[in-house]
Amino acid sequence: MMRITILAVGKIKKDYFREAIGEYLKRLSPYAKIDVEEIEAEPFKRESDKDKAKKIEGEKILKFLEKNEGNIIILDEKGKNFSSHEFAEFLEDKNERIIFVIGGALGFHENILENPYRKLSLSKMTFPHEMARMILLEQIYRASAIMSGKEYHY
Amino acid sequence: MMRITILAVGKIKKDYFREAIGEYLKRLSPYAKIDVEEIEAEPFKRESDKDKAKKIEGEKILKFLEKNEGNIIILDEKGKNFSSHEFAEFLEDKNERIIFVIGGALGFHENILENPYRKLSLSKMTFPHEMARMILLEQIYRASAIMSGKEYHY
Repeated sequence: MMRITILAVGKIKKDYFREAIGEYLKRLSPYAKIDVEEIEAEPFKRESDKDKAKKIEGEKILKFLEKNEGNIIILDEKGKNFSSHEFAEFLEDKNERIIFVIGGALGFHENILENPYRKLSLSKMTFPHEMARMILLEQIYRASAIMSGKEYHY
Repeated sequence: MMRITILAVGKIKKDYFREAIGEYLKRLSPYAKIDVEEIEAEPFKRESDKDKAKKIEGEKILKFLEKNEGNIIILDEKGKNFSSHEFAEFLEDKNERIIFVIGGALGFHENILENPYRKLSLSKMTFPHEMARMILLEQIYRASAIMSGKEYHY
């Protein structure tokens, strides 16, 4: 059974995203053990404070990653684009725990991006971070269905 | 103001997708006149009837496209990948009505794919058609925000 941690900055505020995420987590329960770890989004008042807020969020992410072993994957639109089948093959290879990291509303600071972590892109398009979490879970579910040969209509 | 038609096969059954779509349509109302036209999904019982069902859906799409003028864009994961900024530039160019076509749970039949319509990909990944409609609307909203210089957190 896959062991997956989703490390995300910020809460899911929209009910519809929360419900969709809840449904995919439920559907995934026979296939994967998934933990969602949320890092509090850093508040900021002015435009000029954004970089500082991102830096603090990045430091908290790094602290978590130092204390937790696993295959670290950063979600970044400039990362590698997989098809759903390639993503399923990629997950199938991993025996180790996988830690997916999703940035907050501000995206990632350089203190994360400069690291040699593997980067996965859900799309060249930029998605809201709440939507990205939902899409990632849907793709992990789709990958589980592909791996187990289960039919999954889309 | 942009004039956009979304021609889609099948209904939105999940409440959370319907709510998200409703919210993006509402947020888009100052920027675009958007019509959503739904074609009924063709029922099928056996695996072997799927192709026939897709073909009938395709014929209904073609009938709509013959009767309606516009810039036709087929959503297909094998199409062109735009970044959100490139997508905004692409929309900015269009004075004509744009007709986005989204397939149903079965995807498109060859009778659609063989046509020289422009193809747009939201991602190399395959998404459920209900999710694709939500993501398309979010990207049109994001494009509107980019074009009007409005800040939009993600």
